[in-house]
Amino acid sequence: MANDLSALREESRRLAVELVKILAARREVVNKIADLKKASGQPLVVPNVEAEVRKAMLEEAAKHGLSVETINRIATIVFSDAVEQQQAKPKPALTHFDILRRAVELQKNGREVQRLEVGEPDLGAPPEVRNSTANAVLEGYARYIDSRGLAELRAAIVKTVYERYGLEISPENVIVTPGGRFSIYLAAKTLLREGDELLVIDPSWPMYRQVAPFVGARSIHVKTRLEDGWTPSLNEIEKHISPSTKAIILNYPNNPTGKILDRITFNKLVEFATEHGITIISDEVYADYVRNGHVSILDNELGKQHVLIQSFSKSYGMTGYRIGYVIADKNLIAKMASIIGLIITCVPEFIQMGALTALALKDTPKQYAAVMMRRMELAVRELEKIGAEFYRPDGGMYVFPRIGKLGDDAMATAFELLESKGVAVAPGSIFGGYDEFVRISLGASDESIAKGIRLLGEFITEKGSKRG
Amino acid sequence: MANDLSALREESRRLAVELVKILAARREVVNKIADLKKASGQPLVVPNVEAEVRKAMLEEAAKHGLSVETINRIATIVFSDAVEQQQAKPKPALTHFDILRRAVELQKNGREVQRLEVGEPDLGAPPEVRNSTANAVLEGYARYIDSRGLAELRAAIVKTVYERYGLEISPENVIVTPGGRFSIYLAAKTLLREGDELLVIDPSWPMYRQVAPFVGARSIHVKTRLEDGWTPSLNEIEKHISPSTKAIILNYPNNPTGKILDRITFNKLVEFATEHGITIISDEVYADYVRNGHVSILDNELGKQHVLIQSFSKSYGMTGYRIGYVIADKNLIAKMASIIGLIITCVPEFIQMGALTALALKDTPKQYAAVMMRRMELAVRELEKIGAEFYRPDGGMYVFPRIGKLGDDAMATAFELLESKGVAVAPGSIFGGYDEFVRISLGASDESIAKGIRLLGEFITEKGSKRG
Repeated sequence: MANDLSALREESRRLAVELVKILAARREVVNKIADLKKASGQPLVVPNVEAEVRKAMLEEAAKHGLSVETINRIATIVFSDAVEQQQAKPKPALTHFDILRRAVELQKNGREVQRLEVGEPDLGAPPEVRNSTANAVLEGYARYIDSRGLAELRAAIVKTVYERYGLEISPENVIVTPGGRFSIYLAAKTLLREGDELLVIDPSWPMYRQVAPFVGARSIHVKTRLEDGWTPSLNEIEKHISPSTKAIILNYPNNPTGKILDRITFNKLVEFATEHGITIISDEVYADYVRNGHVSILDNELGKQHVLIQSFSKSYGMTGYRIGYVIADKNLIAKMASIIGLIITCVPEFIQMGALTALALKDTPKQYAAVMMRRMELAVRELEKIGAEFYRPDGGMYVFPRIGKLGDDAMATAFELLESKGVAVAPGSIFGGYDEFVRISLGASDESIAKGIRLLGEFITEKGSKRG
Repeated sequence: MANDLSALREESRRLAVELVKILAARREVVNKIADLKKASGQPLVVPNVEAEVRKAMLEEAAKHGLSVETINRIATIVFSDAVEQQQAKPKPALTHFDILRRAVELQKNGREVQRLEVGEPDLGAPPEVRNSTANAVLEGYARYIDSRGLAELRAAIVKTVYERYGLEISPENVIVTPGGRFSIYLAAKTLLREGDELLVIDPSWPMYRQVAPFVGARSIHVKTRLEDGWTPSLNEIEKHISPSTKAIILNYPNNPTGKILDRITFNKLVEFATEHGITIISDEVYADYVRNGHVSILDNELGKQHVLIQSFSKSYGMTGYRIGYVIADKNLIAKMASIIGLIITCVPEFIQMGALTALALKDTPKQYAAVMMRRMELAVRELEKIGAEFYRPDGGMYVFPRIGKLGDDAMATAFELLESKGVAVAPGSIFGGYDEFVRISLGASDESIAKGIRLLGEFITEKGSKRG
């Protein structure tokens, strides 16, 4: 037997070396492709080509009963090696957090700054929530608990869903998370495997494009236009899906546009995705900030491919509490619970008790929404005065006007606006290359919003831009 | 040119498929090896054989100028796939959380249970911490803040490190995290790429073996033995490293053994890892629970390859607050900050203010340690009475006695102990296959510990086991 074993080992060694030879041969071919592409100015990464090669590899793997997981991981390494070969390292780009940091710095130096860049309402948690959280802290509610969340809180969420959508779900469909970002991460991590694709409708919150590579997947972007009232075209979506498309993120009320899809379009989208085996991640954290109601993934049923992302940050002003929840199929929730159990244990018990108190406050979301909608009207009036084009928001806490191309680099222009006029906004470039737009947040005082928009108008005039 | 390009693409596709064919051929050979090994009772993973194959692959890669990094990562995936193939798919195993759940269930039904399975001290946060956290909640300290943590808290951590280790670090070396688990996750996610290896010294906390595959890497385990006082052998470690070994986790005081390495061995280990380009993740969350001091990765210097994991859970009884910190090279901290910024935003501000208060309480860790060490003495006395062999802990909050092989399945035996005697413990199997051992936690009352160990003694006697 010893001899058999050593012969087999020799063969396994030979095949491992053979593997490297194939990799080397492929690298040469890839280098040639890169040279051709550079010479003709074509982009180096062509997602469809990669996806096709991956598919061919997986088909071959299936013939031999090889693990999809293993081949996916190897394909990813082979592709990223090719890209690293072809590309120069990109320099780290500035983000709107750099705008935020600079705004804070200017304020510390005594400068007046209109802070319209932050995605955080200035409302704060209501006194009832503060009291209940503080009491829970004092009484020592701070033990390790179920990673899915407190049973009482999950039951209250089930009840809220029934009251709001008339939909009966079970506590097994609910998990409490440390906030909306973590909810999105959980959805991405559980739904997407190495090499999968996440469909995102632009303009979109930057987190969506960041979370996909973070879990080894790729985000694919469908553009929408102000001219179409930011409504996505099913046709465009169809063009962008592939067998690797595992999920699509819908975000209405939208950050940054304030758009809410009409029910027919929303349902068509959900239906289309469901039919194509694509899971819908519906990020509805702004659901309470609306003028005339909103559409929800829960309006119909909770299908196996429906995931709701919800948070206490906006509806109850609990941003810094870091608490939200996901509603989804129980198997998906179980996977999410094992992730929370592994890397966080649980959301602090006393925070969950604060959230439980929040859910009982039926008026707070309405009051907070009223503040936001009043500011929305104000922003709309001021934007009309300066002649900016924009979609009049149906909800959310942002307006996304077109200010035109005021320079070569939208981020640099946003910095210029900050330095020269003391107005901080998020440039449209970060939402998917909408360089002619800026996002104005309503998380500031009426005075700040009005003054900020007036100063923005001055800035546009002075830059002598052509808008349109 | 279009034709050239499509011909080249076809060739690259063909080679990718060829790659899969080679993998399939190798898998067949590996299966045959596994059959032979199983027939003769040999272990499936033979590090030396792997190392030799890896070397052959790298030599071939060098001939073609391929990236060593890429080939190493692919080699690791190929090897781990082979191991998965060779091992029968494990059925979803019970964990010690199932023991916990069953213990709670029994208690709810009125049964008396000695809860020695939980890794949570029963001490709770001191009143000063509760008051300060509650006040911060009431005063509305709940905004989005710097993802690295409050400047004041990071400054206080810098000061604590100086006072404790005489080491000057900068706030840029510090990040506040939502607890020890998340700190470990951050270290794994930032240090390990797809196909990398994480070295773990067994027996070990289950999270270490879980986090590696969670970030696409593989954990490689070095065994230690009670007979050697749980001291790892450098020689053994050397045998288990490969060019893909990017990090090693040290955990002293150890969970589950209570071992603290002597300074010479610890320093040798750190030196060895550093020389081999392996980053040391030193999980020192039990550093305050010690009989006679402990060794720390910070005793010498903070090198680029040194990562300290620390938490408020044990030293200040703040388990459910979910707060800890990492100390490391500033570039690594910056990467960790971008992960927290992406998936969590920040640790709640009011919790960070509670932690700031905790750091000022110099006596609390000593008082809590005194409780644990008193219980440790008690457990040691009781274990001696029942004649169990064990390493007398230098620190931590666990004792890890050998109770012998009482059945075919250590988890089933632990359940039997729970059902028949009302004693909940964590079976040694979950710490890396130490089936003859159980972990006894000191997070329970003196009475519970004493009674639990006496009942464990009865159980052992009744099972008529031979201990050895």
